[in-house]
Amino acid sequence: MKVIIDGIIKEMQSVWMEDGNVKFIDQRQLPHEVEIFCARDPEEVAFAIRHMIVRGAPAIGVAAAYGVAQAGIQNRDLKQASNLIRSTRPTAQDLFTGVDFMLERIKAGNDPKMAASEYVNAVLDSCRKIGEAGESLINNGHKILTHCNAGALATVDFGTALAPIRLAFGKGKYIFVYVDETRPRLQGARLTAWELFSEGIPCALIADNASGHFMQRGDIDIVIVGADRITQNGDTANKIGTYEKAVLARENGIPFYVAAPLTTFDFSIMDGRAIPIEERSEDEVLNFTGKMIAPSNIKARNPAFDVTPARYITAYITEYGVVDNKAIPDLKKHAIS
Amino acid sequence: MKVIIDGIIKEMQSVWMEDGNVKFIDQRQLPHEVEIFCARDPEEVAFAIRHMIVRGAPAIGVAAAYGVAQAGIQNRDLKQASNLIRSTRPTAQDLFTGVDFMLERIKAGNDPKMAASEYVNAVLDSCRKIGEAGESLINNGHKILTHCNAGALATVDFGTALAPIRLAFGKGKYIFVYVDETRPRLQGARLTAWELFSEGIPCALIADNASGHFMQRGDIDIVIVGADRITQNGDTANKIGTYEKAVLARENGIPFYVAAPLTTFDFSIMDGRAIPIEERSEDEVLNFTGKMIAPSNIKARNPAFDVTPARYITAYITEYGVVDNKAIPDLKKHAIS
Repeated sequence: MKVIIDGIIKEMQSVWMEDGNVKFIDQRQLPHEVEIFCARDPEEVAFAIRHMIVRGAPAIGVAAAYGVAQAGIQNRDLKQASNLIRSTRPTAQDLFTGVDFMLERIKAGNDPKMAASEYVNAVLDSCRKIGEAGESLINNGHKILTHCNAGALATVDFGTALAPIRLAFGKGKYIFVYVDETRPRLQGARLTAWELFSEGIPCALIADNASGHFMQRGDIDIVIVGADRITQNGDTANKIGTYEKAVLARENGIPFYVAAPLTTFDFSIMDGRAIPIEERSEDEVLNFTGKMIAPSNIKARNPAFDVTPARYITAYITEYGVVDNKAIPDLKKHAIS
Repeated sequence: MKVIIDGIIKEMQSVWMEDGNVKFIDQRQLPHEVEIFCARDPEEVAFAIRHMIVRGAPAIGVAAAYGVAQAGIQNRDLKQASNLIRSTRPTAQDLFTGVDFMLERIKAGNDPKMAASEYVNAVLDSCRKIGEAGESLINNGHKILTHCNAGALATVDFGTALAPIRLAFGKGKYIFVYVDETRPRLQGARLTAWELFSEGIPCALIADNASGHFMQRGDIDIVIVGADRITQNGDTANKIGTYEKAVLARENGIPFYVAAPLTTFDFSIMDGRAIPIEERSEDEVLNFTGKMIAPSNIKARNPAFDVTPARYITAYITEYGVVDNKAIPDLKKHAIS
């Protein structure tokens, strides 16, 4: 992805391995600062995932794979390191996909660093293919809504939901993106707007409350979001608010697409009721850029994800093409392992 | 309403007239400071409305009535003062109701101060009756969702949406209120949470993105919101995001009520397409407490209201009882004038 630092455009990825360290663009500091966080061991990788230095399901999966690779390289207790990494966050499927992939490869005698590279390259390849598959859904003149950040930051590079958008823009299609700010952590405002601005893609930031209004007024032609976990029947856990957008899209006759690689699919559970939903700290709701926004002593509830039932989802944009939920069980044969 | 200042509970209203000045609890400073803004003339009243020192349709109507009263008392050009006040904000019907009421009364030879008192007392009486009418809709054990602030701050006292909630709690019903924070201006977090806390009513603040999730999980039994303008067919302009909540409520089989006095009904237009929607400054989306939340140079869109079509609204809680949209044209005969 393009990253503008002090006016100079650099080509970067959001997570990479360098001299045995796992390096991250620190997503807590964006959009104001591009700082690099360096994790020297699996404990520091776990810290980076838990504290959302890295977030976005595919990027979390890559971070997890690198963390297990470090455990292998550093001759640590693989089970202990894996369990620590697994415990960082409960919802994103890729976290478990990444850890399981690495444990199997290492157990089979593969070099940990090579195995991690294989996993990362598969994710990058999937995102490129998601871009190609999804690009054809975007017409010249389309106004697109996206929620949260399912961009290069969330996936090492290209993105899931943003990959087709990047490609459509690159092909010269005239497009416009409405970006939900995505409270409470403002991933839309801080991350998606930052990515789109760096790429020069026309966009406008809106409050999460406003997307229904723009749908109702005919200002949105297509909705594309990412995913944290997709079950066998197509139910999809994604950033809190996604369910609201999906219901509103259907109500307004607007196609609603979920873009995700196979690493995000959980073939072990049938439907969304079984997905654990992380509830995060009240402080994320009660404080806004470090300042209390509510009276002291007020309680808050802060579910970080919701589940969009498959019936609201037009189709899934995957590295194996654009498919409906009936085709999901059949994708299992392609799953990385 | 109860206002806690330095640990001491005071009984206050949000707008009042005192020695010829119009006084307001400055709603920009809540919940951290209870400051009083003093408007000495119609220009300062217009300033208070325009800059949202006072907001909420019924309270805006009262402020407007007081401003016109000041013009009368101070022997100003009534037409000029009225036009200035009318121009402050475009969506809330009460602004025009309040100005028109005062102009008619003054033209008929009434004392401006007495006329303003008559208007304010009518609003207070309406809110009391809305409380009584709506209270019966709230069952013991109900979990209620509200959006924005339709409380005492928005209506001089009692509130519209919050009036039934206050009364149900006062009668000893066990209730719980989910408060949408209501981006971009956070009236839920700053104002509704502050009012509920002062009254001791159990509540939790949530991101606007989370209310759909709680509806889907069966955690919300009833939704009550206020209104800025209701047309003859029942279409309702209210704070941005209201439309989203209404669609989600219907999708989840949850009753959705709009609480408003007759001063909010616009009997002159047939449906919501004719309601002017204010678009406010991009800065409200891009900045919070002086800190940019998005990259510089990013654009934002900031519609302050949306229109909920009548088909999503279960009923209207008015001072003439709980009515469906078919009954609205018949309410016209009761309209204040």
